[in-house]
Amino acid sequence: MREQLTSIKNQHVKDWKKLATKKGREKFNAYLLDGWHLVEEALKSGRELTALIGTAAELAAHEDIVARFPKVYEVTPAILNHVLDTVTPQGIAAIAPLPAHQFKPGMDLSGAWLFLDRVQDPGNVGTMIRTADAAGFAGVVVSHRSADLFSPKVVRSMQGSQFHLQLFTGDLTKWVADFTAAKIPVFGTQLNPQAKSYLDVEPRENFALIMGNEGHGMAADLLEQTTANLYIPMRGEAESLNVAVSAGILMFALTAGQAK
Amino acid sequence: MREQLTSIKNQHVKDWKKLATKKGREKFNAYLLDGWHLVEEALKSGRELTALIGTAAELAAHEDIVARFPKVYEVTPAILNHVLDTVTPQGIAAIAPLPAHQFKPGMDLSGAWLFLDRVQDPGNVGTMIRTADAAGFAGVVVSHRSADLFSPKVVRSMQGSQFHLQLFTGDLTKWVADFTAAKIPVFGTQLNPQAKSYLDVEPRENFALIMGNEGHGMAADLLEQTTANLYIPMRGEAESLNVAVSAGILMFALTAGQAK
Repeated sequence: MREQLTSIKNQHVKDWKKLATKKGREKFNAYLLDGWHLVEEALKSGRELTALIGTAAELAAHEDIVARFPKVYEVTPAILNHVLDTVTPQGIAAIAPLPAHQFKPGMDLSGAWLFLDRVQDPGNVGTMIRTADAAGFAGVVVSHRSADLFSPKVVRSMQGSQFHLQLFTGDLTKWVADFTAAKIPVFGTQLNPQAKSYLDVEPRENFALIMGNEGHGMAADLLEQTTANLYIPMRGEAESLNVAVSAGILMFALTAGQAK
Repeated sequence: MREQLTSIKNQHVKDWKKLATKKGREKFNAYLLDGWHLVEEALKSGRELTALIGTAAELAAHEDIVARFPKVYEVTPAILNHVLDTVTPQGIAAIAPLPAHQFKPGMDLSGAWLFLDRVQDPGNVGTMIRTADAAGFAGVVVSHRSADLFSPKVVRSMQGSQFHLQLFTGDLTKWVADFTAAKIPVFGTQLNPQAKSYLDVEPRENFALIMGNEGHGMAADLLEQTTANLYIPMRGEAESLNVAVSAGILMFALTAGQAK
């Protein structure tokens, strides 16, 4: 079904614009994919997408992909710019349903997991999810009061990794307790040379790694709940590392040499 | 010497505003430090700063620091916002001379070095310099057509690391040739599973690591000039890593366990 829209006052356009907010995404149980790369990643991963939104030129140039959508909206570039707020718009977007991952008692906790404790910057959250994907992690859990997983900036930084691993939002205290009950080690992180050097931890298959807030680190009560808290020894004079860089160093070191 | 400025049309204000551009920084041989953290890092590292620029309130609250400056400008918040273009202005800035690091034949090339080949994003350049500092690197060389080392965004991301290591802009072909002549290994990086896994390279004291452009990687002719080209084996489905995350993984892995 193809529909042509020319006014930013159209109700569809108003609804799409609301997907930029968490409230809007929850209301419609959907989020936006901006650009061909993300649309193709979703389809390659066998995800059902709700609708394709594109300019006449982009839709005409990709008829094979267009044919795979139950609903297609042909819109003006002005409508897309209004909805997406992108600097370099590609003329294409899609509506994706929010993933249905829900924590269930007894779910499979094997593999490597990344927990994010109130990480604020959407670019950091998205980059860490992309890095977790590259390191072969099973899933990522973000705490409440972190950047929202499906905000436009997080989605841009994830670069499609949401289609490759499980993503949850939840109470990390509960998740850590569940991992501990399952005898899976949980490693916190701390900017503290008294903590355990990550170089003294053997790479392994099953574990969770917690990264904390950019300015304040992990919450004190979470630090007490972990199997061990790790730090990255620094030889130079910088006071700290960017959280996404730290996460990359730790995720790759803790999984180094694991089978693909 | 203390001077009070109230108009953004003042010649000093016009000159400071020009420091936002590379041309202006070269003309005045200076760049701007925004905020107390950077000013304090500079002083702690024994750097001479040319002038302090602050609001009356900030200057009054830090008389000990103010006394260390040969020139102090008391300005309105509007002037500082005009000059700095910051989102959350702290009401303080300083003028720093551009560092005088110049490549000299026969200079000391020992330690670990990071070379950046046309890295475009100022946040990536700044974050990699900060990470190099944390990993105890001796210096960073950025190629021409990279983000300029002393642009406001790079300076913000470096978080003062420019005071802890040597920074150069130069022709990487020449730098790689000099390292090779000194029998110091130079490791390129490549998104290519046929390259050498970084896990197969022993940590070491003396080497150079090259990171390439975000979209296109390293220049083909540089790749041919290196001792070896490294890649980071990825277990997941992500197609690539953020360049600053990759650089962090490699810098820490290649220096792991080196004496402080």
